[in-house]
Amino acid sequence: MSDLLQNTIKMIQPLDKEAMAKAQARQDMLTKPQGSLGRLEEVSIRLAGIQEKALPRIEQKAIITMAGDHGVVAEKVGNFPQEVTAQMVFNFLAGGAAINAVAGQVGARVIVVDMGVAADLGDKPQLVSRKIAAGTKNMTQGPAMTQEQAVEAIEAGIEVVTDEAAKGLDIVGTGDMGIGNTTSSAAIYAVMTRQAVHDVTGRGTGLTDEQLAHKVSVIQRAIKTNCPDPKNPLDVLTKLGGFEIAGLVGVMLGAAARHIPVVIDGFISGAAALIAIALAPELKNYLFAGHRSAEAGHRLGLEYMGMNPLIDLDMRLGEGTGSALGIFIVETAARILAEMATFGEAGVSDKEEE
Amino acid sequence: MSDLLQNTIKMIQPLDKEAMAKAQARQDMLTKPQGSLGRLEEVSIRLAGIQEKALPRIEQKAIITMAGDHGVVAEKVGNFPQEVTAQMVFNFLAGGAAINAVAGQVGARVIVVDMGVAADLGDKPQLVSRKIAAGTKNMTQGPAMTQEQAVEAIEAGIEVVTDEAAKGLDIVGTGDMGIGNTTSSAAIYAVMTRQAVHDVTGRGTGLTDEQLAHKVSVIQRAIKTNCPDPKNPLDVLTKLGGFEIAGLVGVMLGAAARHIPVVIDGFISGAAALIAIALAPELKNYLFAGHRSAEAGHRLGLEYMGMNPLIDLDMRLGEGTGSALGIFIVETAARILAEMATFGEAGVSDKEEE
Repeated sequence: MSDLLQNTIKMIQPLDKEAMAKAQARQDMLTKPQGSLGRLEEVSIRLAGIQEKALPRIEQKAIITMAGDHGVVAEKVGNFPQEVTAQMVFNFLAGGAAINAVAGQVGARVIVVDMGVAADLGDKPQLVSRKIAAGTKNMTQGPAMTQEQAVEAIEAGIEVVTDEAAKGLDIVGTGDMGIGNTTSSAAIYAVMTRQAVHDVTGRGTGLTDEQLAHKVSVIQRAIKTNCPDPKNPLDVLTKLGGFEIAGLVGVMLGAAARHIPVVIDGFISGAAALIAIALAPELKNYLFAGHRSAEAGHRLGLEYMGMNPLIDLDMRLGEGTGSALGIFIVETAARILAEMATFGEAGVSDKEEE
Repeated sequence: MSDLLQNTIKMIQPLDKEAMAKAQARQDMLTKPQGSLGRLEEVSIRLAGIQEKALPRIEQKAIITMAGDHGVVAEKVGNFPQEVTAQMVFNFLAGGAAINAVAGQVGARVIVVDMGVAADLGDKPQLVSRKIAAGTKNMTQGPAMTQEQAVEAIEAGIEVVTDEAAKGLDIVGTGDMGIGNTTSSAAIYAVMTRQAVHDVTGRGTGLTDEQLAHKVSVIQRAIKTNCPDPKNPLDVLTKLGGFEIAGLVGVMLGAAARHIPVVIDGFISGAAALIAIALAPELKNYLFAGHRSAEAGHRLGLEYMGMNPLIDLDMRLGEGTGSALGIFIVETAARILAEMATFGEAGVSDKEEE
C-alpha cells in the first residue's frame, strides 16, 4: 500500500464519545417524549460523534457520482450497451438525470467523476477526470485490473473528496454509473460476505430468468478464474472490481479521515463499503446506509455490515439517488437536535411526579 | 349529516386516469431503466391523478396540526399531565417543537388549530381557534362528544383546509397534539379494524407493562359502555373520538374534494383516516401514508387500509413529523417526473435491439 492510502486509513479514529454524550443529553431534554423521534435521534447522536460537535450541522452537501466501464460486458450480462455509461455521464453534466433532480431537491451539489469510462469524454469543465483506464478487463479471463490500478483508483477517490472538503463539505453521498457494474458488485458481495453467487445477484436493469442464470454463471466463472482472497480486500477489489467502485472506496475512507459523514447509496456503493470497511473497520461508524435497494443481494450486504437503511422505496437506479434521500434524513436529524426547544426553555411540563 | 359534510364527500371523485396515463408514459421515457425508481414512480403517477395534471407540482406545502384534550385522562392512561397539550400548542406557535424543525426542513408552513384544548389559550394571531369544547368527556362513562359536535368538528377541519387552499396549497400533511389521544385512537382502531384492543394499543409516551394493561382495560370499558357501531363511522367518532381527530377527518375530506393530496402522519392521523375513508371510500386514493409509527397498532391500521408507508424510522411523536417527511418524498417524486430528461432529449441509448 502506498503512503496516501495507509495514512488515510490511520486517520480514521473512533467517534467522539464526549460530543455524543452531549448530544444524547440534549435529545433527552427536548420537548418530546424521550426516544419518540426514533432513529432520527440515533442519527443525530452518531453525527455528533463523527463531526466531533455536540450540535452537528449539515449545510454543505455533495454527491460524488463516479463512472467506469467493465470489461465483463463482453459476456453479455446486461440489457444496455456500453456506450450508455458515457451518455449518462453527459446526461449528469447536462442536469437531466435522476440524480440531478434528487440532489436539487436535497440541495446537494453533484460531482461527476470519470474513473474509467471506455470512451474519450473530452475536456468538460464540470467533469472531474481521474480515468485509470478505458474500462476494466474482462474478469472472467483474469483480474479486472492490476493492484497498482486499484490503489491508484482508491487514492483518486481520496483526493476527490479531499478537494471537496477544501471547498466546504459537511456530508457526502456516494453514487455510481457503469454498465456492467451490478455484475462486478455481485461478485464482490459473494466473496466478501461468503454468500452463494445466486443469492447476491440481481436483475440489474431488468433481466429475464434466463439472462439472470447466465449472469450468475459469468460471476461464478470470474471467481473461479481469479481465486480472490476474502481476507485481502485489495485482492478482491483488484480481481473483481471496477474503477468507480475503487474510487468510491477512496471517497469513503477520505471522508471519514476528515470527520465527514458518508451516506452510501445502493448495491454498487455497498460493494465499495464492503471493501472499505474490511480495509478500515473503524470506517463503519462514519457510514449511513441511505436506502435499501431492490437489487437482490443488497439486503444481505447491509445485514452483513450491520447497517439499517434510512429509506426503503424499492429503488434500484444508483447514481446516488438513494444516498441523496438519505442525506435529507440525516440533515433533518441534525436540524431537530439544533432547533428544538428544551422543556425548560418552552415551559412544558416533563413527566408527572410519581 | 349537514350540507357541508355531505357536499364535501360528494366532491371526492375518482382519480384522473388520463393524467395518470400521461405521467406513466413519461416515466417510461425518462433516462433510467423502467421502474428503477420504484415507489417514487408510483407516487408521481398517483399524484398526477390527484392533481389532474400530467406533470404534478408541489410548491405550496402545509402541515395542519390540530390539538384537543381528552376526558379519558381522568382514568390515568398516560404519563404527561393534561396541561401539556396547551403548553405544546404554545411551543408550536413559538417554533420550538419537533414539527417546526421538520416542517422548516421541508419548507412547509405549520397551521396550528385549537380544536378543543381544555384551557383558554387566549387570542394568538398565529393560532386558528376552532374550539368545539374544552376537551371531550370521559369515554368510559358515555360518548366522548355529541354527534352534533362530531359533525361540527369535521366541518371545522373542512373549513380550515379550504381556507389554506385559498392561500395556495399543493399538498397538506396532518398532525396532532393531545394528551390522551393514543387511548382514543386505539379505541377507534379496535372498533374500525375489528382487532382485539390489546393488539392495537401501544405505550404512547412510554408506559410500563402495568400501565399498558390498565390502558387496555380502560379502552375495553369505553367500548363496552358505548357499543359503537363499526358500520357507522360517525357513531364511532362521536363515542370514542377526540375533537382533533374529528378535525383531521375534515382536513382529509376537504383536501381530497379540492384535488389536494394528503400525507397522513402516524397513529392518531391513522384513526382519523379510518373514519374518513369509511365516510368516503374514494378518499383513500388521495392519501399517502407518511410513515409507519412505532406505536403498536399503526402497522395493523395501515394494513387494514392497504397503505404502504413512505418512511419507517421508528418515530412515534405525532405533531405531523411523519407527514412532513412524507411530503418531502412526494415532492421528490414530482420533481423527478418534471425535471428528468427523456432518452430522446438526452441522446441516451434505450435497450439494445434483440
